Amino acid sequence: MATIPPSHQKSSIPPQLSLPFDDRQPDTIRLYPLSNYTFGTKETQPEEDPSVKDRLRRLEEYYEQYGMRRTAEGVLVCHEHNHPHVLMLQIANAFFKLPGDYLPHDSDEIEGLKTRLNDRLAPTGSLSQIEAANHNPDWEIHSTISQWWRPNFETSMYPYLPPHITRPKECKKLYLVQLPEAKVLSVPKNMKLLAVPLFELYDNTQRYGPQLAAIPHYLSRYRWESVDEEGVVVSWTPGGAVDGRVRTKVLAGGEGGVEKMEEDGDGAAAAITAESNATDE
Amino acid sequence: MATIPPSHQKSSIPPQLSLPFDDRQPDTIRLYPLSNYTFGTKETQPEEDPSVKDRLRRLEEYYEQYGMRRTAEGVLVCHEHNHPHVLMLQIANAFFKLPGDYLPHDSDEIEGLKTRLNDRLAPTGSLSQIEAANHNPDWEIHSTISQWWRPNFETSMYPYLPPHITRPKECKKLYLVQLPEAKVLSVPKNMKLLAVPLFELYDNTQRYGPQLAAIPHYLSRYRWESVDEEGVVVSWTPGGAVDGRVRTKVLAGGEGGVEKMEEDGDGAAAAITAESNATDE
Repeated sequence: MATIPPSHQKSSIPPQLSLPFDDRQPDTIRLYPLSNYTFGTKETQPEEDPSVKDRLRRLEEYYEQYGMRRTAEGVLVCHEHNHPHVLMLQIANAFFKLPGDYLPHDSDEIEGLKTRLNDRLAPTGSLSQIEAANHNPDWEIHSTISQWWRPNFETSMYPYLPPHITRPKECKKLYLVQLPEAKVLSVPKNMKLLAVPLFELYDNTQRYGPQLAAIPHYLSRYRWESVDEEGVVVSWTPGGAVDGRVRTKVLAGGEGGVEKMEEDGDGAAAAITAESNATDE
Repeated sequence: MATIPPSHQKSSIPPQLSLPFDDRQPDTIRLYPLSNYTFGTKETQPEEDPSVKDRLRRLEEYYEQYGMRRTAEGVLVCHEHNHPHVLMLQIANAFFKLPGDYLPHDSDEIEGLKTRLNDRLAPTGSLSQIEAANHNPDWEIHSTISQWWRPNFETSMYPYLPPHITRPKECKKLYLVQLPEAKVLSVPKNMKLLAVPLFELYDNTQRYGPQLAAIPHYLSRYRWESVDEEGVVVSWTPGGAVDGRVRTKVLAGGEGGVEKMEEDGDGAAAAITAESNATDE
């Protein structure tokens, strides 16, 4: 079982074939390279509350009027060097957050999340012809990866409902958002957009806080495949049936993987002028 | 949004109604009380390897012969006081582990996991009539909740495949195993079976290690409902459409929840002689 398609393997000793190990898992998620995406800037989006105290007071007012607050955030994943990276906003060179926010009380969940993602990341000005051709304005909300509960009007949240809490004040849901092959993203001038690798988040509560540092855990159940800028599969999570199937072919005829890749690759080299790094204003 | 069905609410001030917040999530998982399960003991199951060094050497031998080792473990969940608890084995009053083990190289994934769960927990002797009537010998493997990768013949594992690792030595998959309404479990005499609440596991890497301490994270995307020994729903994760639907009825006619509960409850009081606590030999 290897992570590399046969056509990309350089070793003359192929890895041992194992039986599949991909049952009870969602379909493989395709990751595109960070360089496929185009990043721009837009107007500053100041924080709604000047302090934590103000934020909690606003939550209290909301709760009295509408009940539990629903907050929705997106985990947008791409790859660099075939390792999953999560797009994250950094504010004032200090704290990190995911795109998303609380939903208006009368808003549908998924539509509300899409609106929030657009508020934060959709381009505002007119796009160049190339950008427009490559831009996919919709968001594909794949699945819920975590829920965090705020039992009181306090800062602590938990990834479960603590015992004896019957009326939580807020539920924050994190969703895996599947990025399309290409997209134009605009970042508010007071924020930085960063692509943070899973290995940087893991075991790093100090820097990213408990919710974001656990992203590798939430995502660990998925199977990934990375494609290059030409849309050719260059890496995948080992243990899949495809892995086995393709490799069986190799062992038989030495041509394995090609069919799979032709089937997957769309051949269209993304011609966008992507800046790999986030805008640093 | 509350966690308690209307018929069980004691407050005269009903919580505010919110719009549903349960999209992109699996169906609600039903949890039965720990007291529904019957625990016994069986023969000692000694560790396969006398030391960590021996274990890693055995892994190396396996890898050379068969490739990446596949290890499968079950997260069995029930409730106590409506809070999810995970069944866990404790060995020699020291370290904790989930039921499950590595799979033989020629074993199917799900069948292999079921065999491993039975090795560890299936009753061996003959069951009493009552036990036999309540016993469900099969296992319902619900979904993969996490994968951990061992990049080298070393003790460290990660919830992602580290960059540049193309031939991992072991993949350990954790599955949510949905417990039936009643079941007889037998625990090897050299082990203790414990029901550990999520709040005890959370942020407790020191005691449970990184894989088990993250169980609350893996499970945070699920919606739960707890039933009592009579099969009546007594608690649920707030924010669901059912929550809204039932409560709407209450607000309208004061009878809400009953229909739901009659539909759900099977009325059969489990008459098994369950010991709530694990066997301590």
